[in-house]
Formats: sequence, C-alpha cells, structure tokens
Amino acid sequence: MTIVADARPLDLVADFPAIPEGWAYLDTAATAQKPKPVLDAIAAAYGETYATVHRGVYQRSADMTLAYEAARRRVARFLNAGSADEIVFVRGATEAINLVAQSWGSLLKPGDRIMLSRLEHHSNIVPWQLLRDRAGIEIDVAPLTEDGRIDLDRMAEMLTPRHRLVALAHVSNVLGSILDARRAATIAHGVGAKLLLDGCQAVPRLKVDVAALDCDFYVFSGHKLYGPTGIGALWARPEILDAMPPWQGGGAMIDRVTFERTTYAPPPARFEAGTPHIVGSLGLHAAIDYVEAIGLDAIHTHEAALVGMAREALASINSVKLFGPEDSAGIVSFAIEGVHPHDIGTILDEERVAIRAGHHCAQPLMDHLGVPATARASFGVYNGEQDVAALIRGIERVTRIFA
Amino acid sequence: MTIVADARPLDLVADFPAIPEGWAYLDTAATAQKPKPVLDAIAAAYGETYATVHRGVYQRSADMTLAYEAARRRVARFLNAGSADEIVFVRGATEAINLVAQSWGSLLKPGDRIMLSRLEHHSNIVPWQLLRDRAGIEIDVAPLTEDGRIDLDRMAEMLTPRHRLVALAHVSNVLGSILDARRAATIAHGVGAKLLLDGCQAVPRLKVDVAALDCDFYVFSGHKLYGPTGIGALWARPEILDAMPPWQGGGAMIDRVTFERTTYAPPPARFEAGTPHIVGSLGLHAAIDYVEAIGLDAIHTHEAALVGMAREALASINSVKLFGPEDSAGIVSFAIEGVHPHDIGTILDEERVAIRAGHHCAQPLMDHLGVPATARASFGVYNGEQDVAALIRGIERVTRIFA
Repeated sequence: MTIVADARPLDLVADFPAIPEGWAYLDTAATAQKPKPVLDAIAAAYGETYATVHRGVYQRSADMTLAYEAARRRVARFLNAGSADEIVFVRGATEAINLVAQSWGSLLKPGDRIMLSRLEHHSNIVPWQLLRDRAGIEIDVAPLTEDGRIDLDRMAEMLTPRHRLVALAHVSNVLGSILDARRAATIAHGVGAKLLLDGCQAVPRLKVDVAALDCDFYVFSGHKLYGPTGIGALWARPEILDAMPPWQGGGAMIDRVTFERTTYAPPPARFEAGTPHIVGSLGLHAAIDYVEAIGLDAIHTHEAALVGMAREALASINSVKLFGPEDSAGIVSFAIEGVHPHDIGTILDEERVAIRAGHHCAQPLMDHLGVPATARASFGVYNGEQDVAALIRGIERVTRIFA
Repeated sequence: MTIVADARPLDLVADFPAIPEGWAYLDTAATAQKPKPVLDAIAAAYGETYATVHRGVYQRSADMTLAYEAARRRVARFLNAGSADEIVFVRGATEAINLVAQSWGSLLKPGDRIMLSRLEHHSNIVPWQLLRDRAGIEIDVAPLTEDGRIDLDRMAEMLTPRHRLVALAHVSNVLGSILDARRAATIAHGVGAKLLLDGCQAVPRLKVDVAALDCDFYVFSGHKLYGPTGIGALWARPEILDAMPPWQGGGAMIDRVTFERTTYAPPPARFEAGTPHIVGSLGLHAAIDYVEAIGLDAIHTHEAALVGMAREALASINSVKLFGPEDSAGIVSFAIEGVHPHDIGTILDEERVAIRAGHHCAQPLMDHLGVPATARASFGVYNGEQDVAALIRGIERVTRIFA
C-alpha cells in the first residue's frame, strides 16, 4: 500500500481508553470514542462538583451554572456564533432538527416548500415529513451529481420563492461528500429561503464558521464529536430564535406561570425546558477543547490521507465498488459484488475491524445508489495506517471467502 | 432535638464522593448526588465498552445494544410495568410530559378537558397550556386541602365525561405531599379519563408499582433518582403507546423511509428518534440497582424520620411557618417571617447547608400559599441527623441575624 505523502499520523489512540490494542474502530461516523479529558470532565462533574443549575442559592449550584453557561459559550466560539445566546442545548442533531421543524415550522403556511437532498439522513427527512402532514407544506428533493454530491446547480433551478427552507447535510454520513455550504447559502438566500445545515459529520472533521458559511441554522451531536451521549447543539440566527414559539413546556423556559396565562423566557432558555443534561454539556466542552487543541485542519488532513489510502487500496480489489467522491471527509462507503454488507461487517469483526453495514439511516440514498445497504468505514483522530491496513486485510479475506 | 424512634440511619454518605465531610446537601428534590456505582457504570461505559446501539454489526455494538435494552427492562421491573416495550427513554420527566401532550394530546378534540392540580410543577402545567393553545382543549385545576394535598373529593366533583386526562404529581416537589394515586386512578377512570402521574419526587422515595396504582402514564427523571443527567423514562399502557403517533422524526424510529411515504417502528422505538443517551440509560440502570438494594421502604422510613425531626425542630422556632402535611415524603418547605427565602438560602450556604429557595417551578402553588417563594430542605439516602442539626443551627442563625 502506498502511503499518501501528507498523511500526518496523529498518534492519539493512547488518549482513548476504550480502544484496545489492535482494534480498528472504523465507526466514528456512528459515534466517536471518548478521549481521557472527556472522561475526566464527566467524572469530575458527577464525582466532585455536582449540583443543579440555575436554581440553587448555594455556591456549588452557582458554580455549576457558570460551568454550564461556559459550555454554551464554548460551543458558540467553536461555531463562531455571534453570542452564546444563539446556542440551544439539545439531545442531539435529531432533536435540534425536530425543534426547528416543530417550532420554526409552525410559522409556515400551506403551500410553502422545503428543499432537501437525496442524500439526507432520516433525521433531516422525517421531521419535515411530519411537518408536511401537519401543515400542508411540500418537500422537494435536490438530486445528486454522479460522484455523490448534492447537485447545487440543479437545486438552484428547482428553487422558487415558495421555498422557505433548504436543509442539507454539511457532510454526507454515507458518502462523506462535503457540501459547498457557502454557495448553498447564496442560492437559498437568492429565493428568500433559510439554510439549515446538519453538521453531525462536519464538526468532527472540518473547521465550521457559521458566520462565514452564512447559514441560518446549524445543528450537531456531541457524541459524534468525541463528547458524551445525550447532548448536542442548535445554533440559529438570533432574530430567528427570537421569533420562534416555545416547543416543550416546563421549568426554566418560562417567565411567569399562571393557569390563565404563561409568558416565556427569551432564547436560549425558552427552548430548554426542564433540568438540562448538565454533565453532557460539560463533557461536550471538554470534547471541543480536545478537538480544537489538535486542530480541525490537522484532523481533516489526517482523515483525508486515511480516506485516500483506503480508497486506493479498495479500488485495487476487483469486486469492490466505491461510492462517493474522492475527496470525501473521513468516510468511505463501498460494496463487494455478491456479498451482503452485513456479511462484510461480520467477517471484519472477526478480524477486529469495526465498520458499519446498513442503510445508515439514509434509505432514499440507498434507493438512489441501487443497493439495500453499504459497508462504511469512517475515521477519527485515533485511527492510523494500521487501521486501514487491517480493513484491507479483512476485505481481502471477505473476497476470498466469497470467491 | 428529640430523635424520632424509627429513624434508621442509612449511613451511606461514603458512597457519594461529591459530598465532602460536613456539607449538608439538602437539595435532593432538585437533583440527587450520585453514588459510586453510578459513577463506575458511566466510567466503564465511556472508558471500556463504548459503542453505538442498534446499528453496529460488530460485537461491541451488539453488546452495548444488549446493555441499553437491559436498562430498559430494569426500568420496567422497577415500575412493575408489564413489559420493557412500555418504557420510552426520554431526557427527563419534562420531555416525557411534553411527549404525551404533543403525541397523545394530538388525538384530543376541541372541548376536551384536562384536570391538573394547584400544586403541579411547571412541567406538568405548561405542556398542557401549549396543547390548549393549539388544540382548543380546556384545563381545570383541582384545589388543595388545608394541609397541602390534592383535594380528591373536590376533584371528583369537578370531573366530567369531557375530561380525557387527569395529570397529577405523585409527590409534590414543594410540599412533599403524597397523592393517593390509586384513588385518583379510580376517580379518573370513573369518568373515562386517563391518569398521568409525575413521579419525579416519588420514585426516589416510595415503592412505585404502576399495575397496583392502575395509572395510565408514569414519568420520572433519572437525575433525581441518583442517576445521570439527561435521562428519564415514560411508561404508558401498551395500547395507549400503540395508538400514539410519532413525535420526533429521525433514525431508529422508522420502519421504511421514502420521500413519498414513511412508516414507523412500533413503540418504544417509535418515540426514540436519533442516537439515544446510551450511557445515561446504563447509569440509570446502576442507580435503580443502588436504590433497590437499599430498599424503597427503608429509604422512605429514613426520610420520613428526617422530615419528622426537621418539622418538629422548625415548628419550635417562633418565626418559622411550615408548609405541607406532617407525613411529607422527604421534603420540607418553610418560610421565616420577615426574611426572604433567598436570604435564608444564602446564610445557610455560609453554614455549609445547601437548600433551595425559590418558587420551585410551581408559581401557581406559591400564589396559593400567598408567598413569592419558600425555603425547601429535601432529603436523600446520604442525609442523617447531623444534616438536620446543621439546618436547624443555620435557621437559628438566620433568626438571630434578622431578629
């Protein structure tokens, strides 16, 4: 196997106690493993400084509130948001999109249209379908280019002044294709539509700057960014958040409650009903610190090198079919002629290589590719050449077994 | 101070690393501290066995899926639910009630009525108000008895066949009053209404058996049950869950997705869109194991003894006014004439006693009590006589300062 010239090994696997020696964990697009600083932040939050937020008059609770709000500021800085008040903590990207679909979406009128793409994750399809069924809006679907990118030229032709929102994956969770998000914003804004970006696969791999991208909503999940489960963030322009009605009711999101009439807090509190996932936010803070200390550019270079190595080696195996563009961000989807992807996954598991096989919550994309499922290897900061080598050895064994 | 005869010290504070020597943590009704086994379960999940659930074809992911589903079975057994399929994992009780209000609530018709009570937490008021504004239903409010219980006699008189739901706190978060839930179910079912119980303050203090209570929905938060933040559970009768439409769309909750038409998974998956708070569910499992190993009856006896001691000592201080019934479950709310509750909280903090002062997310109850706020001491398995003594010393200091 040739080694791509700019492969810069990050050699960070030692930071990840859940990755044993010799295990090639190639399922980071599903969820990332957690580095020691994230584990430590969680252990300290539960084991040393634990208290509730926003409500206690004692010092411990005031300190935890500061830590919770510091995590919010950290997310804002990570995305280059204008202010921490533009960040709403959610369970993950799925909840963030549902929040937008149900709250912002309640402002739409029958006949309004939403533009998605053929490669979206179910979490960026089904919330809009539920809204369609409720509100009488229509959904359009931008096609893909030959190499598996969202076809922005075609999308531009399809957009009309009835389109209120364009909602797209910043990076495809199946193909790794990177959206030209700045251009998508220009096109969307050209017809007066807002742009929502699903950043789940982008934030762990690319430097994201919502101001530079000129998008209107940005969502991501913490657990795919080396952070805890159950936490994620929604960013939206402040004037959009301000205009959005409450979604979930409860403690912390109110101003004043009587049975006759209740008034609501300004964002972000308005959208954070109930005790939040306090420790999740602190763990996410530690995860962002960890990732930015490495540097997103370094991570992207590293993963691009691994993708290049993997694609080159896979392409040299006759029965392998590769999906997605050459410059995919950290994700390689493929199929082997005559072998079900689940069998690939199972045999690779015996070789201590963990990949995902399935529809990746993107059935419309599978239909488009003409397959029920793909095998997907996805990379993270802990992976190296040895993991690509293990993948290729495993695939060679698969092809021998099914030869 | 006299010691109540059946005070059985649990002496468990050593299990709680975040409680330093000499700190009287009396804010368990806001959030409970975490015992070592919960910390260990979380550390192991992130640091040894971490993987995603439901989607991986490799062993680690299959094992994590088993652990996630074992946590669901553990919650079902904890509540004596008929089956694990009746348990939906949510962020907490607030999300659970919003889920019911938005999904089950979408089946209601204009003119249908919902019965709440004067002592409900905002999380059991505001979701119904949002539904009222959307669906044209009406809300009625059951009054309280003199000693701060929900007046079930009056409620029975107020209920009509238009009432579709009675939603009540099983234990009041302010007064500690315990609902006669079995009787509430009989009364609700008498007019054909369902009964939802907000069990946040009940599950850490009382043995809960949803079959024996004959309720229809039961919700609680994990972080108040000595478990992690960001996790909780909704239980509902299976035929009710089956009839409920999806709430949030995304991965894991679907059967088949096309842009034309999407079909949904059966419960509980239908209500768990997106990657769940995997590690939260494992931590909750450990918390339930911990609590049940002590025994809910032992915890209740212990907390009742502490409540008895605290009430007796507080009642002997002239300027103190006590709220709620004598047999409150682990919670004591009070006021001191001429002293704002926040000042009580601040002075107690200097004495290393952490209580909550505020409206406790129950402003309508505050209006009923005729106060803007109360001071609230709430107990947990780690508290003992020394914490009550510290509270009383602190209150005596408050009365001296404001004398």
